[in-house]
Amino acid sequence: MPRYALTLEFDGGPFMGLQRQSHGPSVQQSLEEAAQSVVGHAVTLHAAGRTDTGVHALGMRAHIDVERAFDPFRLSEALNARLKPDPIAVLDCRLVPDDWHARFSCLGRAYEYRIANRRAPLTLDAGRAWRIARPLDAAAMHEAAQELVGHHDFTTFRSVHCQAASPVKTLDRLDVRREGDMVIIEAAARSFLHHQVRSMVGCLGLIGQGHWTRADLVAALHARDRQKLGHNAPPEGLYFVKAVYPGDN
Amino acid sequence: MPRYALTLEFDGGPFMGLQRQSHGPSVQQSLEEAAQSVVGHAVTLHAAGRTDTGVHALGMRAHIDVERAFDPFRLSEALNARLKPDPIAVLDCRLVPDDWHARFSCLGRAYEYRIANRRAPLTLDAGRAWRIARPLDAAAMHEAAQELVGHHDFTTFRSVHCQAASPVKTLDRLDVRREGDMVIIEAAARSFLHHQVRSMVGCLGLIGQGHWTRADLVAALHARDRQKLGHNAPPEGLYFVKAVYPGDN
Repeated sequence: MPRYALTLEFDGGPFMGLQRQSHGPSVQQSLEEAAQSVVGHAVTLHAAGRTDTGVHALGMRAHIDVERAFDPFRLSEALNARLKPDPIAVLDCRLVPDDWHARFSCLGRAYEYRIANRRAPLTLDAGRAWRIARPLDAAAMHEAAQELVGHHDFTTFRSVHCQAASPVKTLDRLDVRREGDMVIIEAAARSFLHHQVRSMVGCLGLIGQGHWTRADLVAALHARDRQKLGHNAPPEGLYFVKAVYPGDN
Repeated sequence: MPRYALTLEFDGGPFMGLQRQSHGPSVQQSLEEAAQSVVGHAVTLHAAGRTDTGVHALGMRAHIDVERAFDPFRLSEALNARLKPDPIAVLDCRLVPDDWHARFSCLGRAYEYRIANRRAPLTLDAGRAWRIARPLDAAAMHEAAQELVGHHDFTTFRSVHCQAASPVKTLDRLDVRREGDMVIIEAAARSFLHHQVRSMVGCLGLIGQGHWTRADLVAALHARDRQKLGHNAPPEGLYFVKAVYPGDN
């Protein structure tokens, strides 16, 4: 069966996450229903990662298998037409080999987290950033973040519901920068534990506000104890930005 | 009476514009009601500019007169608390002299217009940008835009409902640049006619798509005839960014 790789963008606000849930709307359900109405048979969406309720995506990768061949552009146009009014868009659609798998072929994932560092409530960014009123020291956050980069046991930064076999991961990049009143955190790794980005960002937020030192962050990491987590950042500031595959340029 | 200058941000989506309307919600009505509940008497909001239904603001300036003195920070906090859940935020509040007037003291206004130049429907940017699917030549748009900069009769680019005494205005700046799939247009002038930015952007959109040449834009300007307008861009891509006053740095 022809396999199509999709690049997806979505506003996570109305969804209980990417993965299909029995108790509410999901990106997977919307996309599978749209695909079924286009191709005429049941379709399963496989995605590079799961996202939680309220988490957004700018470039999620996924694939579907379809019984007969479609022109990829026409397939993406038809999917976008059927997805309305759900805030999910197919940005790209291409035919891939049968052994290309959105989840298992993925070599790397990148997230971005947006903190609106301001006193006033959010208007245009409501639901799209975490507001922290107290001034953040982005440089201190960036410096401390480097303690988390590398090969570590991230048990402290892992949800109790995480299903990964091991809490040991290699974090390739954790950069913090300020753009006006927005503090932006970029994280990249081969893969992440459940809640890992939000848990790291929550602790960096404590550092930025002066509540935690860099040493406190190191102690939390070394404790390998979820109880030592300072704070788990809310989902609405998190964006799945990119998934990397063999042969991507 | 003490006069307070406010800097406002709002999502224009739910409002029939800034100015109070008999037929629907407005930013003015929400803000005047919030202010009245804080200060205990009726308050009139005076703003640097009017905005249409669906037009956003990142830095609208306005003022209110209040019978007794308030600490400006506490006043802004109280206004923000009462404005909830409306997507309006007071970003700054300061005491100004009695002769400072948000509209009449204003020396310059700046707008930004965002065009999402992509095939896929918008998700996170829905209601916050104008989507044009056909590829835009932003460099050609910028070059042609320079024909509109300067002192001109902008009758072609003026709503038939415009109440300005004269259609002659001086446009200080009209810059077009591309950032990824977003084409951003910045406009600055002492003041603008009603629909002027949207009308100019609509015609630049025709140029970017190759439907109009630079000469077509010049002909439309010189015609001084609203019937010669190529296209009026939709409101959701427009942001009131800034108002400038004497003594601003």
